[in-house]
Amino acid sequence: MNDKRKKEITIFGISGIPEIEPGFDLGNIISKFLVGNFRPLNGDIIVIAQKIISKSENCISDISLIEPSREALRISKITDKDPKLVQLILNNSREIIRASKGVLIVETTYGYICANAGVDSSNMNQENLYSFLPSNPDESAYKIRETVKKNFNVNVGVIISDTFNRPWRIGSINVALGFSGFDPLLNLIGEKDDFGNILKSTLVNVADEIASSAQLVMGESSRVPVALVRGYGFKESNLKGYDLFRDKDKDLFR
Amino acid sequence: MNDKRKKEITIFGISGIPEIEPGFDLGNIISKFLVGNFRPLNGDIIVIAQKIISKSENCISDISLIEPSREALRISKITDKDPKLVQLILNNSREIIRASKGVLIVETTYGYICANAGVDSSNMNQENLYSFLPSNPDESAYKIRETVKKNFNVNVGVIISDTFNRPWRIGSINVALGFSGFDPLLNLIGEKDDFGNILKSTLVNVADEIASSAQLVMGESSRVPVALVRGYGFKESNLKGYDLFRDKDKDLFR
Repeated sequence: MNDKRKKEITIFGISGIPEIEPGFDLGNIISKFLVGNFRPLNGDIIVIAQKIISKSENCISDISLIEPSREALRISKITDKDPKLVQLILNNSREIIRASKGVLIVETTYGYICANAGVDSSNMNQENLYSFLPSNPDESAYKIRETVKKNFNVNVGVIISDTFNRPWRIGSINVALGFSGFDPLLNLIGEKDDFGNILKSTLVNVADEIASSAQLVMGESSRVPVALVRGYGFKESNLKGYDLFRDKDKDLFR
Repeated sequence: MNDKRKKEITIFGISGIPEIEPGFDLGNIISKFLVGNFRPLNGDIIVIAQKIISKSENCISDISLIEPSREALRISKITDKDPKLVQLILNNSREIIRASKGVLIVETTYGYICANAGVDSSNMNQENLYSFLPSNPDESAYKIRETVKKNFNVNVGVIISDTFNRPWRIGSINVALGFSGFDPLLNLIGEKDDFGNILKSTLVNVADEIASSAQLVMGESSRVPVALVRGYGFKESNLKGYDLFRDKDKDLFR
């Protein structure tokens, strides 16, 4: 048994981060707030809400300027959503998974399956403005990790998170869109349990679990877009966000 | 804005709990390990792995004694699973959601949708023994909460958790099967974001997020079947595990 998980984990909400605008250097802005007890240590994981990544990377669209296609008009009728909004969702999608009244679930261009391709208008400072998901959340996470490494000389993990709904259970949970520097999966396959039986297929998605734990301190509507998770004790890895996608041909819910 | 979430949460793994056997008084056994820094405070949430609940409630079956029905034999052929195991899964199910080679996803008798109805053989101390899910995890959680209340004169929340797989993303995450004493949902519907816009439909499943955070310290194969989550600051509620089920007629993935 080579279980490196620690027995105590602390999650700090990092507040005070100013309104983020396109072009802002998010890694350095966040670094300014990682002071005192929040000064990052080797092995810490920094979780950042997708919304501020989208803002810093200018993943923002004014839907009043969008001309809906015939396909967007068709989907708009099915879903009862604004055709301009539907067009923005389609621009960020590669496949429609389900469409019905009030619901549009798609596979995004990066490969997440979620409602509305992650397009939403919360926390936008102007009517008609919608944010969409960053084009490469793994790259976004990598850049922030490198900045934090440079600023503090520590090796941290970084997660870009967003709240997704799920089939079967109500209430969204935070998941890891992209990440950098640590192993997102805890692989217990082939390890032995307490009685020496082989655990056949226990692969835990710790990236999503860490994102969910961070959500407990990150307000959707309060200014806590960043959390610092201390004590997990990660392994390094080069896996990416898309390595957590279930293969299409092995997924029974497409 | 009435967001009571705290800015710092600590998750303690509670180790040392002995092997649990049918009939053991789990609330009092766990209480013995809630000492020192782990002594529960008002507002703490205790997360308990389903496996030890199942053991204490004798939710254990020796599949060598099971006679598979024709339906079990039929499903066994589709899934390539032992017909006796399939029978035990069917005994704990009310509907088959998907069946294919290596995969059997059902709605359990209590209403969870998960693989194999939660039946599994890990951490069982004898060949042919499988545990199944407790018949009423909300009641299990309630009993432990009452015992902890009596022992320490504190008001805690309790979650009974299990790791479930999901569509679309690999790696299981811990979810809340049942719970007692706290509001499992953070309802931001109608609240205003930082710009005064109404957040239309943000309902966060904090029970699942707390279960996931606990999994980070609870080993699947190390003896940490209990975690103490401190600092979330819950609201009281009488909601039950089944209140987190998505209505069948509103679920597009049945």
